[in-house]
Amino acid sequence: MWAALAAIGRDPATGGYRRGGWTPTERAATHWFEDQCAARNLRVEHDGIGNLIAWWNPPDLRSGGTPGAGPAGQADLRSGGAGDPTGSSSSPAGGPALRPGVVTGSHLDSVIDGGAFDGPLGVVSALAAVDLLRAEGFVPSAPIGVGAFVEEEGSRFGMPCLGSRIAAGVLPAEKALALQDRAGVSLATALEAAGTDPAGVGPSPLLERMGTFVELHVEQGRGLTAPVGVASSIWPHGRYRFTFGGEANHAGTTLMEDRHDPMLTYAMTALAANKQARLASARATFGRLSVEPNGTNAVPSQVTAWLDARAADDATLGSLLEAITRLATERAERDGTTLEVVPESVSPVVDFPAGLRDRLVDVLDGAPVLPTGAGHDAGVFSAAGVPTAMLFVRNPTGVSHSPAEHAEMDDCLAGVDALAAVLKDLAR
Amino acid sequence: MWAALAAIGRDPATGGYRRGGWTPTERAATHWFEDQCAARNLRVEHDGIGNLIAWWNPPDLRSGGTPGAGPAGQADLRSGGAGDPTGSSSSPAGGPALRPGVVTGSHLDSVIDGGAFDGPLGVVSALAAVDLLRAEGFVPSAPIGVGAFVEEEGSRFGMPCLGSRIAAGVLPAEKALALQDRAGVSLATALEAAGTDPAGVGPSPLLERMGTFVELHVEQGRGLTAPVGVASSIWPHGRYRFTFGGEANHAGTTLMEDRHDPMLTYAMTALAANKQARLASARATFGRLSVEPNGTNAVPSQVTAWLDARAADDATLGSLLEAITRLATERAERDGTTLEVVPESVSPVVDFPAGLRDRLVDVLDGAPVLPTGAGHDAGVFSAAGVPTAMLFVRNPTGVSHSPAEHAEMDDCLAGVDALAAVLKDLAR
Repeated sequence: MWAALAAIGRDPATGGYRRGGWTPTERAATHWFEDQCAARNLRVEHDGIGNLIAWWNPPDLRSGGTPGAGPAGQADLRSGGAGDPTGSSSSPAGGPALRPGVVTGSHLDSVIDGGAFDGPLGVVSALAAVDLLRAEGFVPSAPIGVGAFVEEEGSRFGMPCLGSRIAAGVLPAEKALALQDRAGVSLATALEAAGTDPAGVGPSPLLERMGTFVELHVEQGRGLTAPVGVASSIWPHGRYRFTFGGEANHAGTTLMEDRHDPMLTYAMTALAANKQARLASARATFGRLSVEPNGTNAVPSQVTAWLDARAADDATLGSLLEAITRLATERAERDGTTLEVVPESVSPVVDFPAGLRDRLVDVLDGAPVLPTGAGHDAGVFSAAGVPTAMLFVRNPTGVSHSPAEHAEMDDCLAGVDALAAVLKDLAR
Repeated sequence: MWAALAAIGRDPATGGYRRGGWTPTERAATHWFEDQCAARNLRVEHDGIGNLIAWWNPPDLRSGGTPGAGPAGQADLRSGGAGDPTGSSSSPAGGPALRPGVVTGSHLDSVIDGGAFDGPLGVVSALAAVDLLRAEGFVPSAPIGVGAFVEEEGSRFGMPCLGSRIAAGVLPAEKALALQDRAGVSLATALEAAGTDPAGVGPSPLLERMGTFVELHVEQGRGLTAPVGVASSIWPHGRYRFTFGGEANHAGTTLMEDRHDPMLTYAMTALAANKQARLASARATFGRLSVEPNGTNAVPSQVTAWLDARAADDATLGSLLEAITRLATERAERDGTTLEVVPESVSPVVDFPAGLRDRLVDVLDGAPVLPTGAGHDAGVFSAAGVPTAMLFVRNPTGVSHSPAEHAEMDDCLAGVDALAAVLKDLAR
């Protein structure tokens, strides 16, 4: 599976992946997933935006059908307690509800020139764990689902966790469909081009089937020395658009003291962001820029720069942004330039429920627990009330979002074993 | 004329001009010029790359035809003396040579989002000066030519003074035709699309007709307090490509101390370039950038930045580049990044011939003399041995390469009067 998927969307020049949402390469990866599910007789369900869950034991068993055989109940796990793994879910009034399942999986899209592991490792490990459990003869008494969620990286439409945010109802369809890629193509247009009706986009019925969600992911910051770990939390994360305005001018004739050069204000801000992040033990990155008019012999009229900032808690993130904005504003005053800061997305901290987390640690014989600075669909589903956990597979260099991203095969296999053990425990 | 030309290629959103070489807007401006010449019965000649000279009294008068009626001889003016304006040009062996003419003019292309004056003012003033001389009943005894030279700004193919460099033989056709615009279209392809055969590109026969060249241009740096001035020199000018290499990584998870972020090296270099230019009373600008992969949540793998640097003399420019490169290299070592600096074009200082310059000052009753930091076709033609001078029209703010570029109408009319007086003197 790994070799087949690894060939899809890889740029031979850089070795990096370019699987933006609804691009031909991302669609090819999705079709590969559907073929794998079909070969395993997993029934694929999709929602309006194109998130997929492939079911082993399709979740049409009614909750009243097999007493005592359901997965860990949602309410039990959300409470922070260990829960009763044999307790059946509560049914809404009016008849038996569909039985919620134990869902695992991740995403198939990539950042621009990303690595092979971020996303696909969770999908492939989920399929491999199903193979392993079947080979063992395990018979789940709750449905097990393998999910692939769209545009997690936000590399095409600028909104991370696009598919899960729409599914969870935190990103309204109207706002989502108006998002544009860098070529000015809206999400609505991209969906139509892919044969998907934009009218179907909205909160997803798939969430009702997610009694529990467990996402396996490659670790991304040298935070894990064991092969497999369990997530405690996702750091809060903000994307802020900094627009530095100045005055276009001739690069050869304009006296240095007559200039209002927004590039200088930006440059100082980029250095300040780095320093402030170090002081706060946080992260701050300017990785995306747009310069107007971007001519060699013209002082720029405008520099737009996107700040990616993350910290251990919401208060630290807030004070980090405040410090960077203050220093940038002071420099803009000296440069005679202007500054506007617009938050494009801000995700608060996600603390995964302690009960589910501790249960995973027990199943995995005391695996280490660690936070992550990366956003994940797991964070969106957790914030939406789905009892959620994450497993990490060791990353020896910490490199991620890069062609050099890597995990050792032995650690990946340990990840599959761990995920199978967790699924067995949750769906027994 | 000004109102008609001002409407061509102006972006209604920014007010800036976008007349890159061989784009539809630049072609429209060129067709406007040809129509104006036809209406004046000026015979337009073009060379292989598309430079145009429109002749009043076509230069097919043989130098033996009208003794004593030629323009100021090339050899006289190049020597630095005032020359004998009534001396006829020397003829090569083998028969009478074509009589060289007095050529004026400028360019019609613009930088991206440039102003209305840079280039077009020189072309329109040349046509207006011809109208003025004709209305006075002046009969030139040497041909007078009005020139429009292509892609002076280099905004499309990255090479300033593209047309004049090819015409003067300092840019080989093979190298020129391989230049690419930002969309990857080569000059050869662009020429073919415009109906021009690339095989004809090369050193231009038009230069043989240029006994003298006088370019009128808007001043660009608050250097002129009188309505009209005369150029002494063009500062040396270099364009250098700085490639900062680092390691792509995840913006959320990668520890600040694990990063090799080329954006930081670039940012320090941009600030250092500004400071070093101030110390050297020179100019240094980073106005064009390209970031890879340019994703919000990725530490960049590469930042490419173009430095535009100019100084009063070649030695100062050299030490400016050296200082910037040294500081950038030191920072790269601290950041664990790499730096490569490639000069894309370096033009040495151009001192216009003193004899011609002093003659213009005399004709203009002691007009002020000043250097310029901007490159011009006049500099290329002068370096190629054509006796060349420049007239500047006052720019009250010094703003140029910007939609806000401006000159007062009274000053523009004073420029036409001055140019007419100079042409009359040189072609009498």
